[in-house]
Formats: sequence, C-alpha cells, structure tokens
Amino acid sequence: MTIQTASLQDRIDARPGDFRVLTGDRPTGPLHLGHYFGTLRNRVRLQRRGVELIVVVADYQVLTDRDVADRLAPTVHGLILDYLAAGLDPERATIFTHSAVPALNQLVLPFLSLVSVPELQRNPTVKDEIAHSRQSAVSGLMFTYPVHQAADILFCKGNLVPVGQDQLPHVELTRTVARRFNERYGEVFPVPEALLGTTSLLLGTDGTKMSKSRGNAIALSATPDETARLIRSAKTDADRHITYDPQARPGVSGLVQLAALCLGQDPHEVAATVGAAGAAALKRLVTEAVNEFLAPLRARRAGYAREPGLVWDVLRAGNARAGARAEQTLAEVREAMGTRY
Amino acid sequence: MTIQTASLQDRIDARPGDFRVLTGDRPTGPLHLGHYFGTLRNRVRLQRRGVELIVVVADYQVLTDRDVADRLAPTVHGLILDYLAAGLDPERATIFTHSAVPALNQLVLPFLSLVSVPELQRNPTVKDEIAHSRQSAVSGLMFTYPVHQAADILFCKGNLVPVGQDQLPHVELTRTVARRFNERYGEVFPVPEALLGTTSLLLGTDGTKMSKSRGNAIALSATPDETARLIRSAKTDADRHITYDPQARPGVSGLVQLAALCLGQDPHEVAATVGAAGAAALKRLVTEAVNEFLAPLRARRAGYAREPGLVWDVLRAGNARAGARAEQTLAEVREAMGTRY
Repeated sequence: MTIQTASLQDRIDARPGDFRVLTGDRPTGPLHLGHYFGTLRNRVRLQRRGVELIVVVADYQVLTDRDVADRLAPTVHGLILDYLAAGLDPERATIFTHSAVPALNQLVLPFLSLVSVPELQRNPTVKDEIAHSRQSAVSGLMFTYPVHQAADILFCKGNLVPVGQDQLPHVELTRTVARRFNERYGEVFPVPEALLGTTSLLLGTDGTKMSKSRGNAIALSATPDETARLIRSAKTDADRHITYDPQARPGVSGLVQLAALCLGQDPHEVAATVGAAGAAALKRLVTEAVNEFLAPLRARRAGYAREPGLVWDVLRAGNARAGARAEQTLAEVREAMGTRY
Repeated sequence: MTIQTASLQDRIDARPGDFRVLTGDRPTGPLHLGHYFGTLRNRVRLQRRGVELIVVVADYQVLTDRDVADRLAPTVHGLILDYLAAGLDPERATIFTHSAVPALNQLVLPFLSLVSVPELQRNPTVKDEIAHSRQSAVSGLMFTYPVHQAADILFCKGNLVPVGQDQLPHVELTRTVARRFNERYGEVFPVPEALLGTTSLLLGTDGTKMSKSRGNAIALSATPDETARLIRSAKTDADRHITYDPQARPGVSGLVQLAALCLGQDPHEVAATVGAAGAAALKRLVTEAVNEFLAPLRARRAGYAREPGLVWDVLRAGNARAGARAEQTLAEVREAMGTRY
C-alpha cells in the first residue's frame, strides 16, 4: 500500500467534492481531547472544505464489553452530542448507528466470501485484540471485525478513510475486498485511500496515551472544575524548570503538549513561557488553555443537550439516509452478483 | 443434545400448529431423487399436517463455487420449480432467497458475538469443508457458515429443523446461539429441535451416495428417456440372481432401493420379484417404477414452467413475507439489546 499523504491532501484540497469520507467511533464513552485532536478536528476541517462525511457509530463493535453494552443508549446520545458540539453538521454529515442499517450489514456476507481465514488471522488489530482479550476466547464478531469495517466503508462508496498508523491494515483489507469484488463481479466499489493523521499521539494527564480506561483523559463534556481537578492531579517531576521532552519527561511534556494544542502554539514555546515557574504554574496555564479552548464547544454542547429530542432526530435522519444509500449499493451488488431474480 | 425423535414426532402429530420448520437448500443444481426421499417428501408431509414451512434458498452459500455462482438465476428458478412440483404450496410455505432479506443477514453480527472462534473451528461440517476445499484457503464465509445457518433458523423463530445426522452439530450451534442470546439479552428466540430423518442414504446408479457431482443422480426434472439411459448405465454385478445386500452388492442394491422407494415396497420384496431374471430385468423394473412415480411430479413441473413469471412471483411473495418477519425479529432483537435509540 502506497500512502502519499502529501499528494492525497493536495487532491482533496483541489477537488473536495470528489471525496467521501467514512469515519466513526465505537460508542464506549465520552469523547475526550485525544479524540478531538486525533480525528474530530480533522473531520470538521474536511467537512468545511466540502468533503462529504459519513460517520458510523459502531454499536455492534462494543457488544462484547458488557459494561458498555448495558448502557448503550446514553453513551450513543452523549457521543452524538460530542459530534455536534465539535462542529459536525448533521445537515451535511450522515451520522448513523451500525445496527440500524440491515443492507449495510448484509454486505458482510459476500465480503466474507472474498477473504480467507488466514488473512483474518494475520490482521494485526485482530491479533492484538486476541492478545489483549479479557475473555478466554475471541468471538466470531471480533475475528471478522475487519470485514465489518470494509462494509462500513464500502456501503456508502467511501473513498477516503482518515486513520492512525495502527489502522492501516484495516484499510488495506477494505481495499483488498473492493478490488476482489470488482474483479470477480464487475466494477461496483471504489478502492478507498487512507488519509494518515498528522497529529502525534496525545498524552493524558499521567504521561501515557490519553484514554478513557486509564482515567487520564479530559472529556469534551467535562466541566471546567472537573478539568481543573484532573490537570491538578497530573503526574509531573521534581525539575521546576519546564521543558518539552516527551521521552525523558512524559508527565510534564503531556501537559505542555495539551496547552500547545489548545493555544495553537509550539510546545517548546509553551514550555519557555512557563520556564522556571514550575509544575503548578504549568498546570494553571494548561487548565486555563484547555477550559478556554473547550468553552465554545461546551456551550454548544449544553445548548444541543437542552433541545429535547434533537439528538435522536439527528440519528433518525442519519439512519434513514445511510439506509437509503445502503439499499442502493446492495441493489448494485445483487445486480453484479446475479442474485437479482 | 438429546434427540427424542419418537416423542418429538408424537408432539408434531398432536399439535402441528406449534411448529415452524426452517429447511432449505443450496442452489447448486436440479434436485434429484436423493433430495426427494431424503427431505422433500418429508417437508410436504409436514406441510400437509399443518406445520408451517419456511424454505431458504441459500444463495450466499454457493458464492465460492464459481461454476454455480455464474448461473445462479436459472438454478434458483429450477429449484423453485422442483419445490412446487414436489408439492410445496407457496400459499402456505414461505420460499425465499437468503440474499433478499437484509434483516436476516444482520442477525449474523450479534450472533457472531455469541460464538467463539474455537467453537467455529470445532464444527465438524466446517472442518470437513476445510478438508475437502479445493481452495488453498477457507473463506471467512465458509468459516462462519454455522452462524449464518443460525440466523436462517432463528430469523423466523423456527423451532424445528429436519436434518440428517451430519447436520446435527449445526443445529446444536443454533441452539447454543439462541440460549446465549436469551440469557444475555432476554427471551427472544425459541431453542429449536432437530428432527432427524428416518430414510437411509439413497444410493445413486453407481452404488455410492446419490449426488449431482457424481453423475449418478436422477433429477426430478429429467425426462423419462434420460432416466432410462441413466439407469441402463448403472453398475451392477455378474450375479444374475437379484438380492438386496447394500454392503456386498451396492450397485444392485441401489437400484433395488430406488424401485422400493418409488413402489412403496420393501427392498427384499422388490429383489424377490426380479429373482433370477437378472440385472437387465431389474433395470427395466426400476426405470418403470421411477418414471411412473415421477410422472405426476414432472407433469406438475411442466405445467408450472409454462406459466410465465410464476416462479419469480412465488419468490417475490416469499421474499416479502420473509423480509417482514425478519424485520419484526430484528426489532425485537434491537429492543432486547438496547440498540433501539
């Protein structure tokens, strides 16, 4: 797989209307700043440029996590509020839940026929899931997960998939499925391109990757007080002089990076601003930067949350739009496969 | 799994309206006498008794066989003609193609979450398919096939599945899926029972199992002349005295069994009728018995074939009925799983 981020970005800038982006999230909890700087911000940028966005809430991918599955509706509700607050425009972006679109899910079956068991076993994310699974055995759903993702991308003929480095093998499998389908049955699907994110990993308040499960994540929906508390509890070190050095000083550097992203400054510049004033001063600066940065987003979120039924209306409209598109693609697939009788 | 064929049969006889049978075929070619005596006859009997029949044409299960997949529509057409000719009543039985019912196919995803990869690997039919696969690798579709079968059975809340001994593990997996779903999400599915066939294996004209791929099968739709030719070419042995001894004389005994089934007689009785008259006499008797037995079925088939659009009308109506039922079940599944937003 050749990824030419630069030239792809040029093509997007030149002809945004040629691109349809499939992106989305597993509804595991509130989105946090790691999501924002990792992917949300970029989605909103693409949308502003005129690229069509299709956003899947991958609710079938959290079934095996019982804690999450048992409170799916409020989690999905919060996720869509996060989307709207971050700037996704439901008039232009299609936000839908995976479970609501049967014609999309049907595509999983013909796609499974195009992929071998060894190919599924080789997928690094599946391997990783297997290695980290708390269960004694991996479910058939997890095992076939890359094929479901291919259906998510191809049902809407998505041709652009923003991903992190770790998700490249998934996009590669989707490309394989699209190519094999087209070769076997005739041209139906685009072969999508991966758009690699440029932001490096966002560190949480403990200096490791920001993640809800580590308790080091600043949720977009947190209050300013909650945000301040979390940043106050961040791990720093004994050196009063603040520098940006992620390898040697992950705790301090994570905070510096957060402030830098929120202020739109270079991390070294931020570190220099604090200088010898120490970790407490850094934390004050970070708290202020984060809360100020998130204030308009949080205000929008609160506004949307007050409108009764808004979120579910957005989802229903998105589900209907995704459903119509999936039906259209499935009709083409049936025609190509000779299963239209 | 305890199978109590006798008492199950008693319960069916006593309350046929309590049972809904899911049965079906992979559309690989014309149905033959092996299918007729193995399953078709029994389906028609169940239908006459008042048991509801749902008949799936499993078109997604033949995708990997390119020869078959490339001429799917005429094969499906012929299969449905065979069904109608054998006595399936499309007013009472729901005949549908797997590919036409997205809500059924969607059930595969939550069901996959209830089954582990080792369980899929242990399934004897999957193992067997792996062993006999002409491909170097097994496809994801084949690997997950027992779960698709669970969706076929459970989408319509089928509670009775007529099977041969070799398919018992599939029904067992469907029972597991139904039980686990009900335990995890609340009671939605019946735990279906297997109805074991009583007819022993039908032998083809070469003394091995009757099967299209062996060229030893008498198609229901064959002409009397084709039937006669196939029986004339059957392998017999040098002993002029005809007896029924499947172990020692598979060729002769296959012919005797065929005649016995068509005449409704005991095979030993049939053999005694021919006695010392030899293989040629046996073949004449078998030809006459088969052609006479199939004459009304073939006449019906020819009649249905002359009605333009009849087969596709039957299929469209069946697909609509199956679709409505699948939507209903999927709605219950969404409610139970908390994915109704």
